[in-house]
Amino acid sequence: MKSAQYQGDRSVAVGSSEVIKPGPGQARLEVSFCGICGTDIHIFHGAMDQRVSKPQIIGHEVSATVAEVGDGVTSVAVGDRVAVRPLLFGDPSSFDKGHAHVGKNLKFIGIDMPGGMQSSWTVPDYTLHKLPDSLSMEHGAMIEPAAVACHDVRLGEVKAGETCVVIGGGPIGLLIALVAIQKGATVILSEVNESRLALAETLGIKVVNPITTSLPDAVDKITDGAMADCVFEVSGSAPGVEVMTELPNARGRIVMVAIHPQPKPVNLFKFFWSEIKMIGARLYEEQDFDEAIELASSGALHLDKLITKISPIDEVQKTFEAIDANPDGIKYLIQCN
Amino acid sequence: MKSAQYQGDRSVAVGSSEVIKPGPGQARLEVSFCGICGTDIHIFHGAMDQRVSKPQIIGHEVSATVAEVGDGVTSVAVGDRVAVRPLLFGDPSSFDKGHAHVGKNLKFIGIDMPGGMQSSWTVPDYTLHKLPDSLSMEHGAMIEPAAVACHDVRLGEVKAGETCVVIGGGPIGLLIALVAIQKGATVILSEVNESRLALAETLGIKVVNPITTSLPDAVDKITDGAMADCVFEVSGSAPGVEVMTELPNARGRIVMVAIHPQPKPVNLFKFFWSEIKMIGARLYEEQDFDEAIELASSGALHLDKLITKISPIDEVQKTFEAIDANPDGIKYLIQCN
Repeated sequence: MKSAQYQGDRSVAVGSSEVIKPGPGQARLEVSFCGICGTDIHIFHGAMDQRVSKPQIIGHEVSATVAEVGDGVTSVAVGDRVAVRPLLFGDPSSFDKGHAHVGKNLKFIGIDMPGGMQSSWTVPDYTLHKLPDSLSMEHGAMIEPAAVACHDVRLGEVKAGETCVVIGGGPIGLLIALVAIQKGATVILSEVNESRLALAETLGIKVVNPITTSLPDAVDKITDGAMADCVFEVSGSAPGVEVMTELPNARGRIVMVAIHPQPKPVNLFKFFWSEIKMIGARLYEEQDFDEAIELASSGALHLDKLITKISPIDEVQKTFEAIDANPDGIKYLIQCN
Repeated sequence: MKSAQYQGDRSVAVGSSEVIKPGPGQARLEVSFCGICGTDIHIFHGAMDQRVSKPQIIGHEVSATVAEVGDGVTSVAVGDRVAVRPLLFGDPSSFDKGHAHVGKNLKFIGIDMPGGMQSSWTVPDYTLHKLPDSLSMEHGAMIEPAAVACHDVRLGEVKAGETCVVIGGGPIGLLIALVAIQKGATVILSEVNESRLALAETLGIKVVNPITTSLPDAVDKITDGAMADCVFEVSGSAPGVEVMTELPNARGRIVMVAIHPQPKPVNLFKFFWSEIKMIGARLYEEQDFDEAIELASSGALHLDKLITKISPIDEVQKTFEAIDANPDGIKYLIQCN
């Protein structure tokens, strides 16, 4: 029984995984695969050392099988294949307005407490979503990032026939594009990495490299002047923020998916002039997991094409280093059992 | 028959007002009162010289009586008392998505073509909204800015029981506060001018001077930690933009009412973290005029308290200079007949 433990200083060591007997309302999982998220990379880089205790078992993109259930657990049974929605809801606050997934007292499992990159993992039963037999465990580990994309597209209120622009073609950007296509939208992806652009094209996404082509001009041309109904800023970059307000049409939407730790200049005049709306989007709610499982099972998300490499947990340090060295990569999975 | 004509260089001269016979679908008005808008002040200061031809009859906050109608006009009749929605819709564009009031080819009457600060004014009949007898012509000239406020509150989706913060207590900020109170909201106004704060208090608005009191702390205290459901940025200031993201609760809204000609740093992280939404709001639609007339007629907008001074058109230059010299002032009207 093994676990991947962040030690600080760009080091993830393989340690033992404690088998914790599930208490009431909990389930113990045998983890199959755990994806590596951008957040895990930030942790690896030390950018979240103030929040993450050391050593800490990281990881939150998990597919697993229920191995044991605690008292009162009826929603899942031993042997069920599941994905995990890694949110621990704290006490509700009046600030939350009922939106527990962005609540003041929310804890994120895998950042604020031990995560899923280990062989045996005990979590609350309400975090579990059953996977259909048709979905492989490899794809099951992609449900969490796919749920992020479903949430973002839902909050962007994307409708059939609309044009979306996704700024940034990493795993989340590509999944947003694929979910928006499923809604019936035409999707244009802006990304600077040619390898990612080539991949996106094979997925039915129109692509623009903003280094060689003006993105607003390209959107204008593709839409014959109608411009974008919904823009997703997923790049986290200053050029992304600069261009995002140049793309929406009247009452068009911008979904703010990326994390921008520092304030950035925003063209507020454009918001006024064309009554643009910007919608912050974070994590997911229960229904986003349901939708992600449905879409993934249907094959619509082309998850095989998004998985760059699967490595055994013993190679976790090497895998983090490989991600840093490979800007073309999309999603790396760690096999935990 | 007189008109107030912007000449450039902080000069508004009184000239003659041409009586233009209304063509088909037009009506000729005898203007009673025309309010002076912030935009008129910008024109006076030369800030819009690139857009405004010279000389130009300015003004767009008008109450008037129909004096003559052109062929085919059935919506109004001679003698009707009206307010004017000063928008000339151009050809629809695919960019507009049906939102003509922010359409690509929109012309604003009083900026892009002769306005209402004149004795006789000929306009399309679809711009006219009838005023009830119970509404004075002085108050009728306040319908246009009140419609802006109704539009802003509508786009902010303000509901009964919510807490709103209005940043900036000029005429539009005060009207937004009053309209939001009519929706059943508690309203906190942030304004640096003590005279405006004193006025706002007499209107049932809670007030904060952000120079002497931390606005986020005040909102936290008033709401017992629940913070604001909807924030209106009406100040056009960098401190306003800095504080606006500190106020909303989870999924709270920010309505961007002010014109910010230059990009300003925005805390995008807050949008992500609490799923805040920002909604650009400009001008008004037909229903906002209807609501403004209804609210004004009911007395709910306390328009008497918002009118600082009424001056004859002969004193228009003096009035513009008085506005510049009096930061305590709210709304100045020009009597045009």
